[in-house]
Amino acid sequence: MAARYKVVLAYDGSAFHGMQRQKNGRSVQAEVEMVLRSLGWQGRSLLVAGRTDAGVHASGQVAAFDLNWRHAPEALQRALNASLPADVVVSQLSPVAEDFHPRYQARSRRYQYRLYCQPQRDPLRERYAWRVWPAPGLRLLSAAARQLRGRHDFGSFGSAPTPGGSTVRQVQAAAWQKMTGDEFVFSVSADGFLYRMVRRMVALQVKIGQGQEDPELVARLLEDGRSKARHMAPPQGLTLVAVEY
Amino acid sequence: MAARYKVVLAYDGSAFHGMQRQKNGRSVQAEVEMVLRSLGWQGRSLLVAGRTDAGVHASGQVAAFDLNWRHAPEALQRALNASLPADVVVSQLSPVAEDFHPRYQARSRRYQYRLYCQPQRDPLRERYAWRVWPAPGLRLLSAAARQLRGRHDFGSFGSAPTPGGSTVRQVQAAAWQKMTGDEFVFSVSADGFLYRMVRRMVALQVKIGQGQEDPELVARLLEDGRSKARHMAPPQGLTLVAVEY
Repeated sequence: MAARYKVVLAYDGSAFHGMQRQKNGRSVQAEVEMVLRSLGWQGRSLLVAGRTDAGVHASGQVAAFDLNWRHAPEALQRALNASLPADVVVSQLSPVAEDFHPRYQARSRRYQYRLYCQPQRDPLRERYAWRVWPAPGLRLLSAAARQLRGRHDFGSFGSAPTPGGSTVRQVQAAAWQKMTGDEFVFSVSADGFLYRMVRRMVALQVKIGQGQEDPELVARLLEDGRSKARHMAPPQGLTLVAVEY
Repeated sequence: MAARYKVVLAYDGSAFHGMQRQKNGRSVQAEVEMVLRSLGWQGRSLLVAGRTDAGVHASGQVAAFDLNWRHAPEALQRALNASLPADVVVSQLSPVAEDFHPRYQARSRRYQYRLYCQPQRDPLRERYAWRVWPAPGLRLLSAAARQLRGRHDFGSFGSAPTPGGSTVRQVQAAAWQKMTGDEFVFSVSADGFLYRMVRRMVALQVKIGQGQEDPELVARLLEDGRSKARHMAPPQGLTLVAVEY
């Protein structure tokens, strides 16, 4: 008898056109579905917590599927990982209730965005961080992040996943951390994110942190809700870290 | 009039067949030479401090070339970086004496090798570290590293760059460091390294650290100088960090 399984997925987004299955181009979803099919899966579509863009990474993406599996869950995880390509892994697997849905039941999602600040690019960090120069000031970044917290219309920062859908979201946490060396990490969690919302948030905050945009612009865009924030940070700095239920 | 320039190169080795120019396959040397040629360089070969294998990274490789350049060195660095691909960068550039040779005049080279210890692979670390499980013990690793220090015949750990050449090398420093999380870094410097010497050193120490090889084996291989250490760590954990003059 088929049971539903929840998996936590980690992937390096560099060589993917995104999480979601596409007509053309490699996707994480298609890779996972292909392996599931080899294990007898007959579903139509993997259930996924959140779509991530081309080049965006994940350490805590969540997905679910129904499968008739006669052995232990650990053996299923091993079988999946034995066939998945090197840039995707099932880091956790567990049986769940048959009505578990990774997208609709998610209470919050958490992303991190990594910057490094140097005048020259560093080829050993380019895959997982955005190079920014001059370095933004931590105080300006933090003040901007504080304004993003709470319930707002984020329509200026992205579009709703469904046309005409609400652009109001509850940002539960938003904060910058200065790491060792020249790196900064922005951590943000919300009940949901609009399309490209984190990348627009990051680009605006960096401009403010560099003194190139007015700190008041955050409040103005949150009030306005329509005119899009002009800049967008590149995908490779972004990682979907966790989905909570 | 042509002057000699010294450059420090950083590169992500993932997509290269190594530092050295090859008949087939992308090399760092060929990429740099192609850009130099577009700036009027007519040399036959870039002078390089050390060859690195396919998949090995560098943050401090050193090279040199002669060029007739009429502008400031900073402008030359910018011109090189504007044309180099994203996975190579000139992080420093300076004019040097006309007889400077990056290989023959190097006093020491320093490498780092990074491990991470998890039962499952982590796609976000696979490019720059070797996954090892079970985790080795730091004491065993450190005891093994201590034995590698000093002047020894390292013939069991690699072959000389020229056939029949000496396999005696002076290892100036060799130590393991436990990083935050589940990572270990091995730092090693020597007057020179044999072909694949660091990767064989690392693999043997890890086996010893996991209790799978006798700690005495280090001394036996150093005395023997002939029978090759059996295991070799994969290239992606290795980075050429610095060359000193």
